[in-house]
Amino acid sequence: MTNLAQPTYLEFPLKTWWAERTDWVEKALDECFPEDAEYLGNVGEMMRYCLFSGGKRFRPILSFGAAECLGKSGRIAMAAACAYEMIHCFSLAHDDLPCMDDDDLRRGKPTAHKMFGEAGALLAGDGLSIWAFHKISELPEGVPPEVGLQLVQDLAVASGHPGMVGGQVIDMAAQQGSVTQEMLEAVHRAKTGALITGAVRAGAMLAGATADQLEKFTEYGRAVGLVFQLTDDILDADEDPDGVSFVSLLGIDETKRLVKESTQIALDSLSEFGRAADPLRALAVFLEDRKG
Amino acid sequence: MTNLAQPTYLEFPLKTWWAERTDWVEKALDECFPEDAEYLGNVGEMMRYCLFSGGKRFRPILSFGAAECLGKSGRIAMAAACAYEMIHCFSLAHDDLPCMDDDDLRRGKPTAHKMFGEAGALLAGDGLSIWAFHKISELPEGVPPEVGLQLVQDLAVASGHPGMVGGQVIDMAAQQGSVTQEMLEAVHRAKTGALITGAVRAGAMLAGATADQLEKFTEYGRAVGLVFQLTDDILDADEDPDGVSFVSLLGIDETKRLVKESTQIALDSLSEFGRAADPLRALAVFLEDRKG
Repeated sequence: MTNLAQPTYLEFPLKTWWAERTDWVEKALDECFPEDAEYLGNVGEMMRYCLFSGGKRFRPILSFGAAECLGKSGRIAMAAACAYEMIHCFSLAHDDLPCMDDDDLRRGKPTAHKMFGEAGALLAGDGLSIWAFHKISELPEGVPPEVGLQLVQDLAVASGHPGMVGGQVIDMAAQQGSVTQEMLEAVHRAKTGALITGAVRAGAMLAGATADQLEKFTEYGRAVGLVFQLTDDILDADEDPDGVSFVSLLGIDETKRLVKESTQIALDSLSEFGRAADPLRALAVFLEDRKG
Repeated sequence: MTNLAQPTYLEFPLKTWWAERTDWVEKALDECFPEDAEYLGNVGEMMRYCLFSGGKRFRPILSFGAAECLGKSGRIAMAAACAYEMIHCFSLAHDDLPCMDDDDLRRGKPTAHKMFGEAGALLAGDGLSIWAFHKISELPEGVPPEVGLQLVQDLAVASGHPGMVGGQVIDMAAQQGSVTQEMLEAVHRAKTGALITGAVRAGAMLAGATADQLEKFTEYGRAVGLVFQLTDDILDADEDPDGVSFVSLLGIDETKRLVKESTQIALDSLSEFGRAADPLRALAVFLEDRKG
């Protein structure tokens, strides 16, 4: 009879679970850069502006979800959640600069360089990127320091030239030439996928994952990272039908097929974890169907 | 009779010692970003350009000198030496951007944004800044992982918003208003002093310094950091007599008196270390008299 029953993760209250954890991470980020602290110049104000711009906190949510998969409180992953979000927000501040995407608005608000000038956005981004490494090295009690060093190195690999920064460089190059599906996947794996996978892995590591378990979380991260990008391209297809994307390269049907396939890979990677993995499962299914 | 003898550090062969250690760190930096490695796009080439632009490797030299003070081989400080140099080179790439100092040349060569465009210089800087944290977490055998976490946090404090990045933000603000000696010292303590002090401390930590010894190295770093800035201002005074500097604020005689006083503080901080501290002593005296 259980085979015929609805999978439990389809009934998981993802929205409430997500909103609660958004509160957690926003309180923790607030404590990293308190509004009333003494700063050198207005660097604190600029970093806060970049950090609190209405994001969905997707990367922190993944860190929490991975820790909960292993039966721990999501809070044990707080250092990773904050650090990966700082890196994400730093990358947005730099991406929006005139020499990159030259965007004036993000989520309806002026971008950092519109608020503080280009130098301000540059330095706020630099500051966030650097502080992510301080944050991720602040271990909760009971986590061995070796794990901290591994977290630091994983964060650097995910965000630096082997990951996000390298992905942005090939993305720049790709905009000037012809692009294959392979190149596009490589760009996205590095540019957005590495950080998403890193956030999942870091949450799992703080919760004491074994090497085998970590392998599963890596598979999960890669799969949802791809789903995230594919669905982004589907949502953007109406706005920018001529841009280089999975949709313009493969067509909408093949892109949707890839979404389905990758969601299944994400679900399969969690098969050994029981109901504790329902948040991460519900998250994968939510991404598959997302409308924004 | 010893009281009348010349101090041994005045005979120390600083130039040879420095050149040898410049080779060490340049080989190690080369291995961090091998020329023939496969990179994402040309990010490796861009980072190498920023790293190998003819600098004096002053921060690595300080890390080596501190380790040798404690009777260890300077090489034990290699991770710190490379990491602090990466941060220094990242800051130059971003400082030279049009939205900051807008410089076309550095040491007679085109700046990074002149070579690779603004986005290239931005991303190369981001990549170096991030990789510094990977590098400093790669501990030599025998160094406890707790020390690695402390090195990561010290690097973030020295280079991030409490240090270098914060100093650049108040420097921007200071260029628009009137400046006091206090403000100028605060800018320089953060903008250049924090990184110099951090490099000394990190070398000492990798060589197993006690808390008391670390305090001495911190004093030394602060003092030589100030000497570095004061002598910079003296050297620049002819070129830019109207810029905000210690010379324009205090006059040349008072600036020179401060150089002498700070050099003495640097020498005094090393009093307990015996002849093993001669490289750091000779370095302080060299800075006091430098002509470039």
